[in-house]
Amino acid sequence: MERAKIAVVGSGAVGCYYGGMLARAGYDVHFLMRSDLQHVRKHGLTIETRGEAILLDPVQAAGTPEEIGACDLVIIALKATANDALVDILPPLIGTDTALLTLQNGLSNEEFLAERWGGERVLGGLCFVCLNRTASGLIEHFDHGSLSIGEFGRGPSDRARQIVEAFVKAGIDANLVENLVTERWRKLLWNVPFNGLSIAGAGATVAGVLNDGGLRTLARELMSEVLNAARALGHEIPDDFADYQIERSWSMGAYRPSSLIDWELRRPVEVEAIWGEPLRQGVAAGAAMDRLRTLYALLKYLTRAERP
Amino acid sequence: MERAKIAVVGSGAVGCYYGGMLARAGYDVHFLMRSDLQHVRKHGLTIETRGEAILLDPVQAAGTPEEIGACDLVIIALKATANDALVDILPPLIGTDTALLTLQNGLSNEEFLAERWGGERVLGGLCFVCLNRTASGLIEHFDHGSLSIGEFGRGPSDRARQIVEAFVKAGIDANLVENLVTERWRKLLWNVPFNGLSIAGAGATVAGVLNDGGLRTLARELMSEVLNAARALGHEIPDDFADYQIERSWSMGAYRPSSLIDWELRRPVEVEAIWGEPLRQGVAAGAAMDRLRTLYALLKYLTRAERP
Repeated sequence: MERAKIAVVGSGAVGCYYGGMLARAGYDVHFLMRSDLQHVRKHGLTIETRGEAILLDPVQAAGTPEEIGACDLVIIALKATANDALVDILPPLIGTDTALLTLQNGLSNEEFLAERWGGERVLGGLCFVCLNRTASGLIEHFDHGSLSIGEFGRGPSDRARQIVEAFVKAGIDANLVENLVTERWRKLLWNVPFNGLSIAGAGATVAGVLNDGGLRTLARELMSEVLNAARALGHEIPDDFADYQIERSWSMGAYRPSSLIDWELRRPVEVEAIWGEPLRQGVAAGAAMDRLRTLYALLKYLTRAERP
Repeated sequence: MERAKIAVVGSGAVGCYYGGMLARAGYDVHFLMRSDLQHVRKHGLTIETRGEAILLDPVQAAGTPEEIGACDLVIIALKATANDALVDILPPLIGTDTALLTLQNGLSNEEFLAERWGGERVLGGLCFVCLNRTASGLIEHFDHGSLSIGEFGRGPSDRARQIVEAFVKAGIDANLVENLVTERWRKLLWNVPFNGLSIAGAGATVAGVLNDGGLRTLARELMSEVLNAARALGHEIPDDFADYQIERSWSMGAYRPSSLIDWELRRPVEVEAIWGEPLRQGVAAGAAMDRLRTLYALLKYLTRAERP
């Protein structure tokens, strides 16, 4: 990957952080930017992490994909709700052997890419990281985080290994996963209840859910629905993984899931990727998901664009 | 009932309206009041209905049940959330043959009375009426409304017929029901989804629920859960009653269910009577109620006393 040309699409916190860390390590990274373009061209990109401020200046920032041109790797960090925009953004970035790595949340983002540009190009990554874009060109990194990368519909490849290696060289705790979709379901086991109940509970933090007996039980039951759906779809996740997800959450305290922050700031919430698609896939596989069905209908309503 | 002594416990809109109409028709009605006591003693009680203002002055208003003493009929119109207070309020009002008529919402209010003062005393009434207590001693009556009265655990009795007759003479569209608990379940078929989703939907009116495809479907599915639970408990409710409840709701427009108003004014919401008790009874009878379980957990959390 040393000589690879890399594009980052979606210059929010995730794209700027992972792309910025690669750029800092010397990789040839091009950022496609909109609102931050002029600021970053003038002042560069700052990542505040572990008490240290990393300034990247100059940054290769472009306003259109045509300015960047064909790349070896395109990292996609747009919100899943903006996927339709990729139909116009990606073609100028895609050459013969371009790999597409989506760092987006939830299910069906890999499918979206595979259907349009071929499944052989597609990889996915799961980010476990606390980030915030606090101003133009300024990313705050609160928690170490890690990045789990896998091929879409295949086991690990040399390409995937090289990408993981590049992230590791850039200081990211990256690892290669055997089955990407299984990992996505494992992550959903947490996101479905905690991100969902944070909005349906009108601002319930992780501690808010855990400290209320009724919501804690509901969170655990939602996890069981997701677990059963994942298994019905052939993913092997052990029984005690749900209990483990509840247990590990106590230490998060008043953590506000990203969907709650999006909702409160009136940004689009990834309702289909996190709740709608798992519900549809689970039900199609014969799983009982009436709690998730209820939560999904409420979340769709609560996050509607025309909400007051 | 002409010479009966009647007490009204709970001087909110429902108690003042039904008790006030009886008093206006010449019945001997005593109101147990707290916050409105001085105002009503000085200025009487006004019921605005169908463009007409009915002033009752003087009103027999008491501050303690001891002032009233034993009655022939006690009409209970407290919020179900305040039932514990009845343990102190009712004894001075109860004589040998005192009948207790609860006009409260949801399930298990008759049981509460029966367990403490004997089932043979207990009757229940279902109010279909739009009322608002808009100021001290002032009740606004928006909609004709009706009152369905039945014995608890028995078919119609002479006593129940006489009570219905008294309400009819007072101008109320009252009727006698064969099976009180069946009627309560029929009413819950509407209250469970529409009152519940109005809060869980952060202020969704009836039209708000019906105009959102996801919430409308969820409302219909919740009705099916309640219908199946009622049937599992032996109540005969026809299949098409749920569709009828959806259909008849379209004309309500932006109506705000009473629970939503309570919630927004930070008053206690009757969560156990309307959602908790039907859930417990339905589940005990073997009905599948995972949507109601989800809604109940959210409502309990959203209406908690210490909410911000």
